[in-house]
Amino acid sequence: MIIDCHGHYTTAPKGLQTFRDAQIEGLNDRSRTKGSVAITDDEIRDSLEQAQLKFQRERGSDVTIFSPRASAMAHHVGDATTSLHWTEHCNDLIHRVCLLYPANFVGVCQLPQTPGNPLANCIQELERCVNELGFIGCNLNPDPSGGHWTAPPLTDRYWYPFYEKMVELDVPAMVHVSASCNANFHATGAHYINADTTAFMQFLQADLFKDFPTLRFIIPHGGGAVPYHWGRYRGLAQDMKRPPLGELIRGHVFFDTCVYHQAGIDLLCRIVPLDNILFGSEMVGAVRGIDPETGHHFDDTRRYLDKVPGLTDGDRHKLFEGNARKVYPRLNRLL
Amino acid sequence: MIIDCHGHYTTAPKGLQTFRDAQIEGLNDRSRTKGSVAITDDEIRDSLEQAQLKFQRERGSDVTIFSPRASAMAHHVGDATTSLHWTEHCNDLIHRVCLLYPANFVGVCQLPQTPGNPLANCIQELERCVNELGFIGCNLNPDPSGGHWTAPPLTDRYWYPFYEKMVELDVPAMVHVSASCNANFHATGAHYINADTTAFMQFLQADLFKDFPTLRFIIPHGGGAVPYHWGRYRGLAQDMKRPPLGELIRGHVFFDTCVYHQAGIDLLCRIVPLDNILFGSEMVGAVRGIDPETGHHFDDTRRYLDKVPGLTDGDRHKLFEGNARKVYPRLNRLL
Repeated sequence: MIIDCHGHYTTAPKGLQTFRDAQIEGLNDRSRTKGSVAITDDEIRDSLEQAQLKFQRERGSDVTIFSPRASAMAHHVGDATTSLHWTEHCNDLIHRVCLLYPANFVGVCQLPQTPGNPLANCIQELERCVNELGFIGCNLNPDPSGGHWTAPPLTDRYWYPFYEKMVELDVPAMVHVSASCNANFHATGAHYINADTTAFMQFLQADLFKDFPTLRFIIPHGGGAVPYHWGRYRGLAQDMKRPPLGELIRGHVFFDTCVYHQAGIDLLCRIVPLDNILFGSEMVGAVRGIDPETGHHFDDTRRYLDKVPGLTDGDRHKLFEGNARKVYPRLNRLL
Repeated sequence: MIIDCHGHYTTAPKGLQTFRDAQIEGLNDRSRTKGSVAITDDEIRDSLEQAQLKFQRERGSDVTIFSPRASAMAHHVGDATTSLHWTEHCNDLIHRVCLLYPANFVGVCQLPQTPGNPLANCIQELERCVNELGFIGCNLNPDPSGGHWTAPPLTDRYWYPFYEKMVELDVPAMVHVSASCNANFHATGAHYINADTTAFMQFLQADLFKDFPTLRFIIPHGGGAVPYHWGRYRGLAQDMKRPPLGELIRGHVFFDTCVYHQAGIDLLCRIVPLDNILFGSEMVGAVRGIDPETGHHFDDTRRYLDKVPGLTDGDRHKLFEGNARKVYPRLNRLL
């Protein structure tokens, strides 16, 4: 079985954006209510058949761990009520996808984060999504301000109540920022990758995993800059008297394979312990074109993995299925 | 000849920090003056003989393009006067190094940037350093706020007056941030690498090099995350109808080799056009230890380059000398 740990519903029917546009237009209405999203099951089927399901078939993956569009989370828009309403609708839509195609999609939730707010809302929504909707994880935004980086580091006690709930429910979080409202940061070309690198360094600096021995994070986009700079991180850890990287991340920090060329994937698999790598493609996502050098989609990451030299069948099983089942143990109840 | 394009005076005699401490203590004094830095020539010699010069000899490099300690620039401290006084002292100290060891060091200057301020001060200091002190380039901080990213992108017209002076003097800038005062970003483990990635994406998005056909930037630390994610950037450029990356960066954007393990350097040399790579080590810098896996310093980057498969003598000449002479044409007057 091939499990893609990183897919977003980037092709959602237009009813979702219609809702969001109206919500943003009404941000200052005192009488605003949660409202509703008008999308039919047929629209959902159409949106997936022409994209994610087609790509699953063409590329030979079986299941996608599926969450709302990351760039649209936009936690910096409006206030906590805005974020809650928007998040509930987005997660409910993912739930409908999973009900329509239970063999193809497993849900991961967006969280109703808001800059400067406590995480009580997020804890409630995580519980709802896991216990009521059957989701198996969440996307946690380390920078709900959208590129101004005003939240405390992920190792700060601000996040601890949320981590307690993650541990209790035995679900991991993918560390995933959203749109950037800082002109310095292109969303998918800078902000995403920077956040990945930033989160890793935060984990390296602190003793978070001593406080939470079963807490697990996926750092997407191949771990940002980290595998390329593995020597820098090994050296920094050593200079700072921290544990060796392999030991520090074991069972806690995992990278996906959303790296869109052969040399990058080769490096990832050469350097990072294979137990810490999960197959992912982020399709349909940041890069949608076909690479003229290969004739295949840039984000068809399975092709790169198939060409990595020296992987055994056991290694491939870990990358494509085994590691995902360990990181997301609730997968085993569903698959 | 082997030219190391990236060295900072991280081992400056303690008189420099004594000055800085006093300057910071007196930030609110109305009567503050520029003051002076008490360092003898012997102290300078000692500080270099035990570190940079020793490493040059041991590792077989000839010349280091040398600038003030990057993390100490701290443009967010104090105001424009603070930044100007501090910068002038730091650059004057580099000048003294270059006078004492003209065969070993060539100067690159810090700039008196201040968040939100115009760049007139920086233009003046660049002129002084190039025309009076014989420097060959500068370090430009894209985020003088120190991790809050409040400046406009490097492609914004805010920077254009400074670029005009760079073009007139025919000197490049290394894009280099300083210390982070944002708890999210470890300086050398996150902020530096993020800034490199961010700058590259900014250059990809805009037509800066149409406006300045001879403007040149070095992106340090191996280009941040960029070579590892080269496929992502090629794909983003294609989706955004931008020129191919190789064409976009040719003659304009260069990466150094401050990547501290073999696999990273192998990827850099496999993926990025060799015309766009300059040998650099950042010694003595971010990572000071010895890699137990190799028995050599993490930042002894020449060893990795020596082991890259498939490089010809012509390639090696480019990496170690030829490219540096093109990017820093004033080198040719000195060497």
